Amino acid sequence: MEPLIIRGNILFTPRRGELRALPRGYAVCRGGVCLGAFQSLPGEYRGIPVTDYGDALIIPGLVDLHIHAPQYAFRGTGMDCELLEWLKRYTFPEEARYVDLDYATRAYSLFAKQMKNSATTRAVIFGTVHREATLLLMDLMEETGLISYVGKVNMDRDAPDELREPSPEASAFDTFGFINVALRRGYRRTRPILTPRFIPSCSDALLRELSEVRRAYDLPVQSHLSENPEEVALVKRLVPSAAFYGEGYERFGLFGGEARTVMAHCVYSTEAEVERIRKNGVWVAHCPNSNLNICSGIAPVRRYLEAGIRVGLGSDVAGGQTESMFRAVTDAIQVSKVRWRYLDPEARPLSFPEGLYLATKGGGSFFGRVGSFEPGYEFDAVVLDDFILPHPYPMTLAERLERAVYLGLDREGIRAKYVGGCCQFQYTE
Amino acid sequence: MEPLIIRGNILFTPRRGELRALPRGYAVCRGGVCLGAFQSLPGEYRGIPVTDYGDALIIPGLVDLHIHAPQYAFRGTGMDCELLEWLKRYTFPEEARYVDLDYATRAYSLFAKQMKNSATTRAVIFGTVHREATLLLMDLMEETGLISYVGKVNMDRDAPDELREPSPEASAFDTFGFINVALRRGYRRTRPILTPRFIPSCSDALLRELSEVRRAYDLPVQSHLSENPEEVALVKRLVPSAAFYGEGYERFGLFGGEARTVMAHCVYSTEAEVERIRKNGVWVAHCPNSNLNICSGIAPVRRYLEAGIRVGLGSDVAGGQTESMFRAVTDAIQVSKVRWRYLDPEARPLSFPEGLYLATKGGGSFFGRVGSFEPGYEFDAVVLDDFILPHPYPMTLAERLERAVYLGLDREGIRAKYVGGCCQFQYTE
Repeated sequence: MEPLIIRGNILFTPRRGELRALPRGYAVCRGGVCLGAFQSLPGEYRGIPVTDYGDALIIPGLVDLHIHAPQYAFRGTGMDCELLEWLKRYTFPEEARYVDLDYATRAYSLFAKQMKNSATTRAVIFGTVHREATLLLMDLMEETGLISYVGKVNMDRDAPDELREPSPEASAFDTFGFINVALRRGYRRTRPILTPRFIPSCSDALLRELSEVRRAYDLPVQSHLSENPEEVALVKRLVPSAAFYGEGYERFGLFGGEARTVMAHCVYSTEAEVERIRKNGVWVAHCPNSNLNICSGIAPVRRYLEAGIRVGLGSDVAGGQTESMFRAVTDAIQVSKVRWRYLDPEARPLSFPEGLYLATKGGGSFFGRVGSFEPGYEFDAVVLDDFILPHPYPMTLAERLERAVYLGLDREGIRAKYVGGCCQFQYTE
Repeated sequence: MEPLIIRGNILFTPRRGELRALPRGYAVCRGGVCLGAFQSLPGEYRGIPVTDYGDALIIPGLVDLHIHAPQYAFRGTGMDCELLEWLKRYTFPEEARYVDLDYATRAYSLFAKQMKNSATTRAVIFGTVHREATLLLMDLMEETGLISYVGKVNMDRDAPDELREPSPEASAFDTFGFINVALRRGYRRTRPILTPRFIPSCSDALLRELSEVRRAYDLPVQSHLSENPEEVALVKRLVPSAAFYGEGYERFGLFGGEARTVMAHCVYSTEAEVERIRKNGVWVAHCPNSNLNICSGIAPVRRYLEAGIRVGLGSDVAGGQTESMFRAVTDAIQVSKVRWRYLDPEARPLSFPEGLYLATKGGGSFFGRVGSFEPGYEFDAVVLDDFILPHPYPMTLAERLERAVYLGLDREGIRAKYVGGCCQFQYTE
């Protein structure tokens, strides 16, 4: 991998709440790793080829901590019910289609193409229960250039027949097979992740089996947690002995600690659950758009940040209507304002730099040193052209970036994208 | 004006909550008025030329009941404070620039171009206090093809020197002048509207003067009402004898009744105010995006609808970040879910057809019979191409429209636009 330098208006958030801007600065990459962002190029890097993006904005790649690839097909529709009914009415019927590899090829190709063209450079992705379709999804994600975790879903209860795996053992066996094949395919960017759907769909016996799969491969874990009041009540009935929802996972070693774990939502986590999330170093994938659409509520993100919990953002397609992580940033800010106004006057709203931090360095930490142009960070970058937004007076770089994010310029304004030091695409003028 | 017929997948909301879909139907227009939408073309209309938009979606034009043209330049920035501070820090300094007609030309041209290209066919628009700049805005709006009300703002207190008009009499005199010139210019689509900014900026003496201006020309009125708790408290201090905020306008005949009036926001209207809004037939311009961004809250729209109040939607640029009325529709639905969840479990969330109704027929009623393809409605239509959103299986028309609105296809998917029976633009394949 050749060293490279990109030049432009560089913006990133080294600390939560701090937006650093280097007008016409340089970001230097060697071996896939950032050597730093500089206002003027240090002499030692002269000789490395510079790609000059002129007046464009350059930011770290965006990290989507929670997205369901098989739900992409119905994004933006079916926004008329809550989680449990929504799963039955829209999600499960759609996910059942992925038993058909032809369908999976068509649908996942659309998803992968969109992810490639998005501002997202890293993603943590749910597939379906289907092993073959999920391997196909991994093939397609590998081609996008994104670095991603992809999981075959496990469900052995409370699901329609077509999606319910016949037994805990069969589910675990299939998961072993999935992981073995995934690892053998030698992907450079795509890794398997253990994916028990959520407690309502996973018996204790299944989670026990999965804990062994996890240990055998030292896999990370993704799942859902305390998303919706009905779901939380259902979990209480299903696992009456658990002190809190997350204990249903923790009993089987699937809730942080040794198991690198990301839990989506955490809207209704109790104090005990929040404390365990913190103690176990579980990542929270905050998915504000989804929480709006399927009426879940607003997660207390300010509280999580103050408690020192790791928080990133998720698009949660198709509870969320779009894969746009710019949208996730602004939704996170907007709902934090509603929460402050009506539910928690002590929890001040997120600022724009905080929102951007969550979508870059916040979620990026799940992948290691990701989401910043500080030295030692993996080199993920998005180059944004905002000339399509003409303006009657000069704006600061911070204003230009805020506007680009609020107006969703990740849709047509992305000029180039780098992941782990590789340029994935680049439009020349 | 020649009669015309457009063909395609026609969708509209004749009643709140009812989405009617005519696959490959016909909408017929004569003399600027819709003669109806039909599944098959009645014999009597044979001979009228048909423009066939194939598989495109055809919906009524969108109506923006509240937008500030001079704030368009800073949309999507400055989202870090509440209303009163936001006015001081961002809005007033920007509005002060419009004393300069060169600046106004540059900035309003960008605004007008965007409005022309949007899905909005009708708008109720704030200018600034500047007479000349606001007339210029009217010239530019006239060219867009939209039908709009445009108001020169009045403010005689609590504003920076550059924006504060020297006296109530001077403000009224300038407004007379504005209206006279506006009427003399003989616009076909652009009408003046009385625009006292809000109670904090308007003394009783000014409102008294304006009430005479209003009566002299039988003008409609636009203003702000009960948007933010700080503002509501300020109004209480400024007009201690008023039983509710809106009474500050009503005393001077500027709150419905004979005066066709639209009030933006109404987030914190008291019971007495709500009752007066209803009784006086005041239109409420619900602006959910703005209410999120500047931390105002969530208006109780379901309650207003149940009370029989007239409600439309507003983008409220630049409290709102975008002029997209598709965004206003989905924001209205999303915040209604938060309100239901946390504040009012009896007020069920808005459905998609209800959201679309508010943005078409709801707000359209401020302009007369507008916002539907029922016979007798003025013929405003937007033709949407959604082929840029490929899909792995066939969708219903209702699903396609919901998706197009949630994904903001008013940005690049508008193929043609008709206002009052005139085609404003049309992209051919």
